[in-house]
Amino acid sequence: MHIEVVANIGEARSDDFLHKTVIVVDVIRATSTIITALINGCKAIIPVETVLKAKELYREGDLLAGERFCKKIAGFDLGNSPLEFTKEAVQGRRIILTTTNGTRGIQKAAKADRVLAGAFLNSKACAEAAIALKRDTVILCAGTQDVFSLEDGLCAGHILEELVLALGEKHIATNDFGLAMRGCYLQAQNRLYETLLSCTNGKKMCKSGFQGDIAACALTNTTDQVPVLENDHMMLLPSIPARPAF
Amino acid sequence: MHIEVVANIGEARSDDFLHKTVIVVDVIRATSTIITALINGCKAIIPVETVLKAKELYREGDLLAGERFCKKIAGFDLGNSPLEFTKEAVQGRRIILTTTNGTRGIQKAAKADRVLAGAFLNSKACAEAAIALKRDTVILCAGTQDVFSLEDGLCAGHILEELVLALGEKHIATNDFGLAMRGCYLQAQNRLYETLLSCTNGKKMCKSGFQGDIAACALTNTTDQVPVLENDHMMLLPSIPARPAF
Repeated sequence: MHIEVVANIGEARSDDFLHKTVIVVDVIRATSTIITALINGCKAIIPVETVLKAKELYREGDLLAGERFCKKIAGFDLGNSPLEFTKEAVQGRRIILTTTNGTRGIQKAAKADRVLAGAFLNSKACAEAAIALKRDTVILCAGTQDVFSLEDGLCAGHILEELVLALGEKHIATNDFGLAMRGCYLQAQNRLYETLLSCTNGKKMCKSGFQGDIAACALTNTTDQVPVLENDHMMLLPSIPARPAF
Repeated sequence: MHIEVVANIGEARSDDFLHKTVIVVDVIRATSTIITALINGCKAIIPVETVLKAKELYREGDLLAGERFCKKIAGFDLGNSPLEFTKEAVQGRRIILTTTNGTRGIQKAAKADRVLAGAFLNSKACAEAAIALKRDTVILCAGTQDVFSLEDGLCAGHILEELVLALGEKHIATNDFGLAMRGCYLQAQNRLYETLLSCTNGKKMCKSGFQGDIAACALTNTTDQVPVLENDHMMLLPSIPARPAF
């Protein structure tokens, strides 16, 4: 099985994703939030890039969610903290979530056979889904404004390590960046929370009072669920079938 | 002290190097070869990108060196294996070396206050030179055709670790990619040779019969010398002064 890890969205080319599984990773915080919301019973999440687009898509009963500069958008129901997306807040609702990097990653990956949302919360489940889908796989680290973010790379390394544990080292081939991220994850695995606090986005979150979010995003393998993109909606499916071959 | 690690030449912008120290790293094999040749007494190395340029600059007494597709260029005196650049072969000579990625890295860095050549062979010496130069520092991983190469990232991590050992963790600030490379190096430090064999360029070298080169490039801190760029020549200086401020 071949797994390519891409360092940030700017390095990704849409056409390279054709016929592949793409796992989009934006640990702080878009994919951690999407996973948390869906586990807590929201029907679907529509990730959009702009506030305007979020308002356009809004229908009665929906929740509007998102942040700019770490703060909830004025008039929106929720920000972008996974801690806000409780069962009480989201069950049965459709959520329109506006984020920048995570959404761009999901849109960039749209030509893939399947687009999954990954974070530390579901690394093992992502590895299992990728194996079940039987395709070459790309782990797309969202990064921040086309710059590599450590937490996304560490999560890519975690997913790779779960693939190696499941299939054995001989059956996993990856690019040099993937090798680096796996090494980096193995080095940090016993102090993930502290490592996330030390990276650029971790520091930014702490300054804005979101240290609890970092703790929530650093939990590993708390769920066996993997959000999948279906017609612009991220949702949970009982199982994720590959699309039929052309 | 701020250290930025750049993943490959394509990500580097020349103007970002102004007033900084840049350490160019192309472990397999350009910078390992440049360091070895200078330690063994060659007068200077002129790194150039094309065979034509190498032949243009050639003067009687020079050595022409370089490779294409891992093989010595027809009619040249030397290839690009550090093992060839012995005292007997290079002492007192000027060498014109044509490589692709290493040379592009050095040229891209030319606006810097100082351009140094780094590899595992002189990581600690690079760290000490960067401290002595008292500038913000960029470690530019050459990579291969604008793609990240593991060995260069590991060496960047090694230089960072030497900086941390010298100044203490609190006095070294780095970008997320630097944090990742340091973690990756710490994970691999006790089996660098095996790790270099497992990466893309390591595999390519082995296939071409250059496994011995990988062993030579994986040796750490064998010299306290740091090649520095002076008027398009890489050379050793008794000490490396910063350029006067404007």
